[in-house]
Amino acid sequence: MSLNLKTSVLKVDQPLELKSGKVLKRYELAYETYGVLNNSRDNAVLICHALSGNQHAAGKYKDDDKPGWWDNMIGSGKPIDTDHLFVVSLNNLGGCHGSTGPKSINPETNKIYGSDFPIVTVEDWVNSQSKLMESLGIAKWKFVIGGSLGGMQAFQWTLQFPDKVEKCIIIAAAPKLTAQNIAFNEVARQAIMKDPNWHNGHYLEKNVIPNQGLALARMLGHITYLSDDSMKEKFGRDLQKQKLNFNFDVEFQIESYLRYQGEKFGNSFDANTYLLMTKSLDYFDPIKDFGDDLNTRLSKTCSKYLIISFTSDWRFPPSRSKEIMKLLIHNNKNVSYSEIDSSGGHDAFLMENEDYFEIMRNFISGDNNGV
Amino acid sequence: MSLNLKTSVLKVDQPLELKSGKVLKRYELAYETYGVLNNSRDNAVLICHALSGNQHAAGKYKDDDKPGWWDNMIGSGKPIDTDHLFVVSLNNLGGCHGSTGPKSINPETNKIYGSDFPIVTVEDWVNSQSKLMESLGIAKWKFVIGGSLGGMQAFQWTLQFPDKVEKCIIIAAAPKLTAQNIAFNEVARQAIMKDPNWHNGHYLEKNVIPNQGLALARMLGHITYLSDDSMKEKFGRDLQKQKLNFNFDVEFQIESYLRYQGEKFGNSFDANTYLLMTKSLDYFDPIKDFGDDLNTRLSKTCSKYLIISFTSDWRFPPSRSKEIMKLLIHNNKNVSYSEIDSSGGHDAFLMENEDYFEIMRNFISGDNNGV
Repeated sequence: MSLNLKTSVLKVDQPLELKSGKVLKRYELAYETYGVLNNSRDNAVLICHALSGNQHAAGKYKDDDKPGWWDNMIGSGKPIDTDHLFVVSLNNLGGCHGSTGPKSINPETNKIYGSDFPIVTVEDWVNSQSKLMESLGIAKWKFVIGGSLGGMQAFQWTLQFPDKVEKCIIIAAAPKLTAQNIAFNEVARQAIMKDPNWHNGHYLEKNVIPNQGLALARMLGHITYLSDDSMKEKFGRDLQKQKLNFNFDVEFQIESYLRYQGEKFGNSFDANTYLLMTKSLDYFDPIKDFGDDLNTRLSKTCSKYLIISFTSDWRFPPSRSKEIMKLLIHNNKNVSYSEIDSSGGHDAFLMENEDYFEIMRNFISGDNNGV
Repeated sequence: MSLNLKTSVLKVDQPLELKSGKVLKRYELAYETYGVLNNSRDNAVLICHALSGNQHAAGKYKDDDKPGWWDNMIGSGKPIDTDHLFVVSLNNLGGCHGSTGPKSINPETNKIYGSDFPIVTVEDWVNSQSKLMESLGIAKWKFVIGGSLGGMQAFQWTLQFPDKVEKCIIIAAAPKLTAQNIAFNEVARQAIMKDPNWHNGHYLEKNVIPNQGLALARMLGHITYLSDDSMKEKFGRDLQKQKLNFNFDVEFQIESYLRYQGEKFGNSFDANTYLLMTKSLDYFDPIKDFGDDLNTRLSKTCSKYLIISFTSDWRFPPSRSKEIMKLLIHNNKNVSYSEIDSSGGHDAFLMENEDYFEIMRNFISGDNNGV
């Protein structure tokens, strides 16, 4: 069954009070849906995207070279099976793919927001996503799912709306960033903000983009998404030409790959959105945010959890997923945990893998899961 | 006994043929020595520096805030004991602390070399270091020692001059860089070469320096020198102020630390030298370079080896040091290997550590060491 693709936009006219204290008076959320919402409206699931994701998670538009970013996971007969499920996938607030964000017009100034767009948090996203849920007439998600920053949103859903999530799938995530994680984000931010085209974040008004800084940020990010082993397998020390250049042109194949990936991203993604997303990662810390209230919130949640990590992921290694697992077990929650053997690094959550997909299918279809 | 500091300069008028095929007609090497060369001239040791090191390894000049970069290791009564040893420490060719390098005048153009300075390799360094050895009237080093890129030079000495090195101490090194190592170097290089002050490497002629790009490179490098654990211990998620800023100013203490380190380095080190050093790292691959000749060369070396790694070093983890050890054992060499328990990451080789220093003392003073 084909996915019948279209992008919808929800216009929300109620103000959204952000964690920063700022208020967005109105905003729009761009989203796609796949599959059909059943009559009892209880087959809806929410896909939360990671740092550079968007609403286009599955299927292929007519002019697309590639399908959506999680097409191997979502579709007819796939682990998130659109023959049975109604899948909702949105672009997060602050994004650059149709939802209100730094590229939008600030209604108060009639100029592009740029860096005046407020910093949004995982908490803010979940609040805005709940408006989309309401508008679609969904009372409870069958599950909320995401990898990396998306997994953090899935986790946050069960804390913020403990009775609205039946199951929660948290993949390749962490309960908060380490100093090293923050450090990588900070280098990425500095790379963007030191670009001569940065103009304090108001580059679009000047008809330029800080694409070189963003490319650097992406190159660096990319290293942390891949494992040392997968880089070795893919590139090793292979040269572009037969012998060493003795200059600073592209020399090793890994350099060529990174430059290409960086350039492509630098010219297509919005730098302000990238900055926002990294801050949202840095700020995520529900254990600190909720404090003593966390246990109360967890006691209220009816969610069953599936937590998945990948052996070669060094951005959010299995030990970080286990921190979430232990917290949940400590609170007597129903938790399944699975550590998937993969050389794919952090990006493994986007890759096809028999064990991974089988565990997903079982958890999604099963009625009873737990450690 | 104080070290009696002074910087000497060796002027070499013989041409040096580089691995790239280029020739340096003449060059200078800046160096310091500590301790006294004995009458039999057999107590000399060579210190090889890493990426951003220089000749000033020990002691404190009158106006210095801090002593030389390995002052805890070198001095009277220290593991490299200047009461008994004659210590030679130089600035590598291509450096920016007095030896001929990108900041020097190119005799062929009478302009600053800048990026026209040829790329030098570990092999080239060892050749140039051997000229210093000759000039000092030393026939054999009691030992050659270095950490990281310095360790690679120490290893290379035993391959290139197998009969001129009594002992060889290789600390926190690797027999060659992985794709991930090269990838980090490439992001650093791109950060420098995308700086608007770069001017194709001829920035000094324009009276500017690409300090922001170099600062980014250093910030990134710094992350790879520290362990995740040491960052956690030092900074954790501690904030500069009491609460979140919700802007892009310095927020977490790790950000402040990295920005400070980056800025300091960006304003004091030479960007072209930094680029050269990363290439020298990328190119180091003696197993490939020597090919079938490696075993012959190793069979000729009379050196005893000490190889040291640190548990939390993820730039060149213990597994990489073991590759060198296995190669040497396979060739029936006399090898001691020690994996030091430390949370200091790659930088642990520069830190005081009782086990580390004890192993160094034993190996240096002992007549018979081996696995």
